[in-house]
Amino acid sequence: MRTSPLADLQSRYGSQLDARIQKWLAWPEDSSDFAGMMRYQLGYADETLKPTLAPSGKRFRPLLCLLACEALGCRGEQALDTAVSVELLHNFSLVHDDIQDRDPSRRHRPTVWKLWGEPQGINVGDGLFALASRAVMAIADAETAVAVGKAFQETALLLTLGQFLDMSFESRASVAIDEYIDMISRKTAALVGFCVWSGARIGGMDEAFLGHLRDFGRWLGIAYQIHDDIMGIWGSAEETGKLPGTDLRNCKKTLPVLLAAQRARGGDERTFEAYFAGAAVDLDLVRETLDRLDARSDTEDVVETNLESALSALQRSGLDGEFIENLQSVAFELTGQAPAKSSGTVSNR
Amino acid sequence: MRTSPLADLQSRYGSQLDARIQKWLAWPEDSSDFAGMMRYQLGYADETLKPTLAPSGKRFRPLLCLLACEALGCRGEQALDTAVSVELLHNFSLVHDDIQDRDPSRRHRPTVWKLWGEPQGINVGDGLFALASRAVMAIADAETAVAVGKAFQETALLLTLGQFLDMSFESRASVAIDEYIDMISRKTAALVGFCVWSGARIGGMDEAFLGHLRDFGRWLGIAYQIHDDIMGIWGSAEETGKLPGTDLRNCKKTLPVLLAAQRARGGDERTFEAYFAGAAVDLDLVRETLDRLDARSDTEDVVETNLESALSALQRSGLDGEFIENLQSVAFELTGQAPAKSSGTVSNR
Repeated sequence: MRTSPLADLQSRYGSQLDARIQKWLAWPEDSSDFAGMMRYQLGYADETLKPTLAPSGKRFRPLLCLLACEALGCRGEQALDTAVSVELLHNFSLVHDDIQDRDPSRRHRPTVWKLWGEPQGINVGDGLFALASRAVMAIADAETAVAVGKAFQETALLLTLGQFLDMSFESRASVAIDEYIDMISRKTAALVGFCVWSGARIGGMDEAFLGHLRDFGRWLGIAYQIHDDIMGIWGSAEETGKLPGTDLRNCKKTLPVLLAAQRARGGDERTFEAYFAGAAVDLDLVRETLDRLDARSDTEDVVETNLESALSALQRSGLDGEFIENLQSVAFELTGQAPAKSSGTVSNR
Repeated sequence: MRTSPLADLQSRYGSQLDARIQKWLAWPEDSSDFAGMMRYQLGYADETLKPTLAPSGKRFRPLLCLLACEALGCRGEQALDTAVSVELLHNFSLVHDDIQDRDPSRRHRPTVWKLWGEPQGINVGDGLFALASRAVMAIADAETAVAVGKAFQETALLLTLGQFLDMSFESRASVAIDEYIDMISRKTAALVGFCVWSGARIGGMDEAFLGHLRDFGRWLGIAYQIHDDIMGIWGSAEETGKLPGTDLRNCKKTLPVLLAAQRARGGDERTFEAYFAGAAVDLDLVRETLDRLDARSDTEDVVETNLESALSALQRSGLDGEFIENLQSVAFELTGQAPAKSSGTVSNR
């Protein structure tokens, strides 16, 4: 039996990655409570800002970046600062997202704003963004630093555009499936695309291949986010680190809900109208309606379609060997798929 | 009679600067309401996001950057993208600051969060930061782009550290004068230092001179912020664009208050204790106490001391001629000083 590809990557790079993230978090002023709050968000400090090791998420973004750097036989370590910047940017967006959604917990712990208030929460996010933006420029070759730095900030801008769309959906009576996919392609997928692209770029890969790798990351990012939507409704607190049903309680217009609403008739239609209007909804009723309308399996089909697009992009790159197999395995794991399920699109090497 | 040096700069560079800021704000998606909200903050859109020309502040930071670029005979235009990034970064900090302080108005108009809510307000700030970080990398020479980009993000990080200190002062019973100066040296002065440094760096100036110019900017930034504190208490709405007395109403621990509290005895001491505790204070009483304890003239002395440090740094640079005179004139104007007042420290060329 194969072990988890992400666990493999974690065991190869985890401690180096932790050490490098902590190095950046200690800069420029290790001692301030401000740095402590940033360390808390990343899982290196407890609520009193004392050192600890708390759950810190899968860290799949920086690990993907390091893996992508190995494409041409490079050591992943070369992309370590870029990997750090990706994880810091992701955490910046989580800190602000938690304020915007008023989420009280994340990764089994209170959120930053819940502990230290909204004003400091906003500022902790800002600090993480600044630190991420500084770390991404720590590449010895100036031309590479500029190319990677520009792409990083373009990704960050797309991320805020996606966040704008996500929030503007909240006050709307309906959202089309295409609009939803467009939103997550910015909010989530652009960053996953950057991870793969930047790692491979630092590893010395040619422009001709880089585009395909970025496409792979983007499709994977979409598939991952939709899988995450599924977990947000049907996953346990243990799996997600959030209170179960948070998305439903916040009347989030996630893909399972949008797909079910599309085919709802009669009483079901009214259930979703109330949900979309943000009215106090009967959570059990919404869940039962989603199940009856096959929302879960419909959504899983969309995950699979996007995963297949990701794997096709990999094949189009013309690259082969262990590197590609590793990327494929990570893609399967991130989207909750058994490799066999999509074997038709997997290279038969 | 000399005209205003900032007005001179504005007439030389204002329209180019406006055009370049608007170019960046139109990127990558001109049409979205998100870009519209960013344009609103910069003064280019009204509340319905239609084009307008609203008050946009003095724009002294980008103008200082352009002026500094002229040091060795360069055209200021070369630093135009960097100047834009400085103005965008400043506006990012204002948007978040307004949320954190719950300020309802800025530059005679409602603040972004007041119009579109806190969640979107946080995101508009994030978008401006991302755009600023992208614009700062638009320098043709890669080595220069990396040096300026790194310094920019270090400045942004100092800015968030300063903001952390400023907010943490709110819940404290006392703040020492040194702590206050330390806070504004990060929150305000680091960015002014960056403006002068980056402009001169792009203009081709040697390392030996750059440090003195950055020091000039930092001291000037401190003097400017303290002058701004004075205006926040004794300035009119017309001069500041804010509701008069906002700082006092928010029980802000600005320098005039800290200086007066230091020498307060008896009833005056209790007035400031209540103020520092954030209790509902009698604004007229606080104002009367500040006046009676000479807080304004004491604070003006501190402005002058820091302005003198700025001008000394300029002299130490060994640079001379019109360039230095222009920087001096801007420094006088920004700190509300008549040039003659500090003539002892002004080069007699």
